[in-house]
Amino acid sequence: MKNRVITISREFGSGGHTIGKMVAEKLGIPCYDAEIIQEMAKETGFSPDYVKEAGEYAPGSFLSAAFSNRMFGPTNEDILWERQYRVIIALAEKGPCVIVGRCADYILRDKADCLTVFIHADMKFRAERIVREYGEREQSPEDRLRDKDKRRAAYHRFYTDMKWGYAQNYHLTLDSGVLGIDRCVETICALYR
Amino acid sequence: MKNRVITISREFGSGGHTIGKMVAEKLGIPCYDAEIIQEMAKETGFSPDYVKEAGEYAPGSFLSAAFSNRMFGPTNEDILWERQYRVIIALAEKGPCVIVGRCADYILRDKADCLTVFIHADMKFRAERIVREYGEREQSPEDRLRDKDKRRAAYHRFYTDMKWGYAQNYHLTLDSGVLGIDRCVETICALYR
Repeated sequence: MKNRVITISREFGSGGHTIGKMVAEKLGIPCYDAEIIQEMAKETGFSPDYVKEAGEYAPGSFLSAAFSNRMFGPTNEDILWERQYRVIIALAEKGPCVIVGRCADYILRDKADCLTVFIHADMKFRAERIVREYGEREQSPEDRLRDKDKRRAAYHRFYTDMKWGYAQNYHLTLDSGVLGIDRCVETICALYR
Repeated sequence: MKNRVITISREFGSGGHTIGKMVAEKLGIPCYDAEIIQEMAKETGFSPDYVKEAGEYAPGSFLSAAFSNRMFGPTNEDILWERQYRVIIALAEKGPCVIVGRCADYILRDKADCLTVFIHADMKFRAERIVREYGEREQSPEDRLRDKDKRRAAYHRFYTDMKWGYAQNYHLTLDSGVLGIDRCVETICALYR
């Protein structure tokens, strides 16, 4: 596989999704994020909402874990991970693209020529951003962020055994709060070319 | 203090020092590294070699620790840290510059407008590089790297309480092994402007 793929891991609220879409548009290549969830939902028969939620919970912590146990064969999470693995490899084989989240950096590590990126920002920037993008919730934005960060780190750790947010795992990490979304997009595009 | 400063933290052998010098040259601003050691040596009366070595050992692990104990006042390391602190702030006050190592990111965090960078690379790239740059030693290059990494992380942790190499601590981190020295220089210069 010789296609160049940009994988974007990101802290919730850091703008990683927006950056991925903008980079893809600028480079004229597709960006996969929700598409992966749709594809997995279609393949497994689970609802897109279920697939989305399960992708943020490490096995054993998701509600369904109460009903699934490895003693009786693969759990729902294991089935989803296996499909995710196959969907991501198939997308990378189709041609150059941007893939946001879903441990694509790990899945493609020996299978595609990747530029692996991690986007982060401080709590204040992200809290303001999620309220603006997703509206208010009963839970404070800071609590929502802490909760999501913890889940993503646990999920990532469980399936990849890599430390979440550790610079050595990525070719490039960017603080979108300090640098701004536009300059993150420019930096990624410049390093991709 | 309004001067823009680029701080470069780096894994041993990753080319962080070379990148710092090249960035400074390209931007037409000074780069401080060995200069800080000379300045500290002059101010404290310690030899430059002693200052250099002490900057990589967390207190208690350096040989001199046997002869210095906080019960009897500040240790040699504490004296050096305090001078390092003052020298770095004075350099940042002089004007825009690049500062390599010496926890400058931490020292200047509320005192200057900084672009904080961390440079890393995998073991293979760094091992080849240190043999090329500094020659063979009795100890294998991999052991030398592990040793230096451990010391820098411990030193950084002791004085700053920040996790070494953790993406969230930096505005930008770059894998010089994958991206190459020249593209690291271009990226830093582009984000500084």
